[in-house]
Amino acid sequence: MGLLDRTIKAIGGLDETAMAAARQRQDTLTKPLGALGRLEEVSIQLAGILGTPIPRLGGRVIILAAGDHGVAAEGVSAYPQEVTAQMVLNFLRGGAGINVLARQAGAKVVIVDAGVVGDLPEHPDLYSAKVGRGTNNMAKGPAMTREEAIKALETGIALAQREIEGGADLIGTGDMGIANTTPSSAIVAAISGKDPEVVTGRGTGISDEAQRHKAAVVRRALEVNHPDPSDALDVLTKVGGFEIGVLAGVILGTAASRRVVVLDGFISGAAALIAHGLCPNGRDYFIASHLSVEPGHQAMLAHLGLKPLLNLDLRLGEGTGGALAMNIVEAAARCLAEMATFADAGVSEKSE
Amino acid sequence: MGLLDRTIKAIGGLDETAMAAARQRQDTLTKPLGALGRLEEVSIQLAGILGTPIPRLGGRVIILAAGDHGVAAEGVSAYPQEVTAQMVLNFLRGGAGINVLARQAGAKVVIVDAGVVGDLPEHPDLYSAKVGRGTNNMAKGPAMTREEAIKALETGIALAQREIEGGADLIGTGDMGIANTTPSSAIVAAISGKDPEVVTGRGTGISDEAQRHKAAVVRRALEVNHPDPSDALDVLTKVGGFEIGVLAGVILGTAASRRVVVLDGFISGAAALIAHGLCPNGRDYFIASHLSVEPGHQAMLAHLGLKPLLNLDLRLGEGTGGALAMNIVEAAARCLAEMATFADAGVSEKSE
Repeated sequence: MGLLDRTIKAIGGLDETAMAAARQRQDTLTKPLGALGRLEEVSIQLAGILGTPIPRLGGRVIILAAGDHGVAAEGVSAYPQEVTAQMVLNFLRGGAGINVLARQAGAKVVIVDAGVVGDLPEHPDLYSAKVGRGTNNMAKGPAMTREEAIKALETGIALAQREIEGGADLIGTGDMGIANTTPSSAIVAAISGKDPEVVTGRGTGISDEAQRHKAAVVRRALEVNHPDPSDALDVLTKVGGFEIGVLAGVILGTAASRRVVVLDGFISGAAALIAHGLCPNGRDYFIASHLSVEPGHQAMLAHLGLKPLLNLDLRLGEGTGGALAMNIVEAAARCLAEMATFADAGVSEKSE
Repeated sequence: MGLLDRTIKAIGGLDETAMAAARQRQDTLTKPLGALGRLEEVSIQLAGILGTPIPRLGGRVIILAAGDHGVAAEGVSAYPQEVTAQMVLNFLRGGAGINVLARQAGAKVVIVDAGVVGDLPEHPDLYSAKVGRGTNNMAKGPAMTREEAIKALETGIALAQREIEGGADLIGTGDMGIANTTPSSAIVAAISGKDPEVVTGRGTGISDEAQRHKAAVVRRALEVNHPDPSDALDVLTKVGGFEIGVLAGVILGTAASRRVVVLDGFISGAAALIAHGLCPNGRDYFIASHLSVEPGHQAMLAHLGLKPLLNLDLRLGEGTGGALAMNIVEAAARCLAEMATFADAGVSEKSE
């Protein structure tokens, strides 16, 4: 059995005993019942993931996978393909949005070259794992082979395991790849059955006309390839991307090690759909950091049954939403662990 | 001219030049135009408040005002009145939700006794400024005198000034006071003209029947007192609270010193309505941290023209939403200051 199959098999349910204990403790803390809202829900999920009634969170890592897309040749993006590699260099120099937000959040950023077209320099923060030099143009045939899809997934699994061994408890997913909202739209259309028009957005900022063209390209990719919605590996192979495959692997590897997956926006959502298709249990380990401006993101979250923590009209990717949400996740854990109980504090309880 | 009038006169508009420069810089940073959504808007507001194109934020303080309410005698709360003083002791020992979240956010918490019924011990973190020992029962007459209302406001102004002199750039408002959602509902009903039924919620968690009773008490308070919606001082006097007055003063004092007001939820929103009524300019200095579960909060934010940063189903008060939002506000400033430009990073711009 390969790494992918072993990982999927290892993903178990949440620890119900720890969750029940966390829920009970929440109800003794010095606040009206339920007054911390979503923070209470998150704290209970954390207890279930980490398998302890009072979870404490250690290291934070953003795994940012970059890849290029053959479908860029169809003119679906506002930016030229060379920007993928240029932005990787920007990440390595610390100048991008994710660098700023990860520094603030105290999170390490690991950049993965999952399949950028150009050559990239060696760098201690760059993990070189090119599955190929960009995918094939999915409007004309499969984006990659099944073997490449498995390689991308297993790269992500191995990376997540490495970071967890290094102390990570919260792993955020991030992406970079010119044109990568196009395969993400194709993935959500294939898996949810929604029309491409409904789940194709403006990406980095294209016109109305370009958006209609992009939706037509997504439709063509689905017609040419017929991805099987019940086979997530087939969907990834035919209309996915190398960075999307790596991120789906990161998600599976994190869940298999009982750590917290902090999903970013639309491209991370596509990776989560693939991971969820491969292993429906995985979903219990996901926290949706934010709701993206991309219209297909809502459909993804609905399919996964997730409610986002933030709604800040972000559409940058890179893991920026996840970095912003990490402090909220930590806040949930801290309130559960550090607040006084009514008994400890000598505060009178509800009089009704 | 007294402190209140001088403060109101000192509140000027935002620095348009700094805002234009910040907006221009945002458009050169290595991200698609507008891709950081609300963070970009906040960064531009911060530039306008602090009067500099690349604002950097210093100290963070939560000013948490506590007070008791005569209207508690009408049975509007799920908790007995003694809980106000008990929770102040909990704040001073560091065991409440706000203590945990402020520690995480790196914010100092200043507790103000604005008018708690019981005696409180001396403590370095407690600022004793009892305007009275609880307000009068507003269902039977004015909650306080006009002189008391001015005293509460000026206490808040002086405190904000003290904290700003001590280095605070972000001031969050927090509250504690058994029954204080009742005057807050009365304030929003008086100022917005909404029916008490629409803006009266469950507070700390009361039944349907108790909620109807509470709305009837709010209606009675408005009928008995006839607060003048065009005179915010009259509204505060007749249906307000001592801690609400102090917080309205904190808001005015912060805006007058060109610093950032981070509003918490429903009670802070009532204070913001009073501050805005006294000085409509003040609104430019407000950041709404979150949308509370209290139904009247949406009406407050609509009246003030504010969009909340977070929606986490919180209903705890104490300044907890503000403490959670401070990292988001800081993130906005950091992205503007620290991200590389397209030119610096050698990244190609949009090809359209």
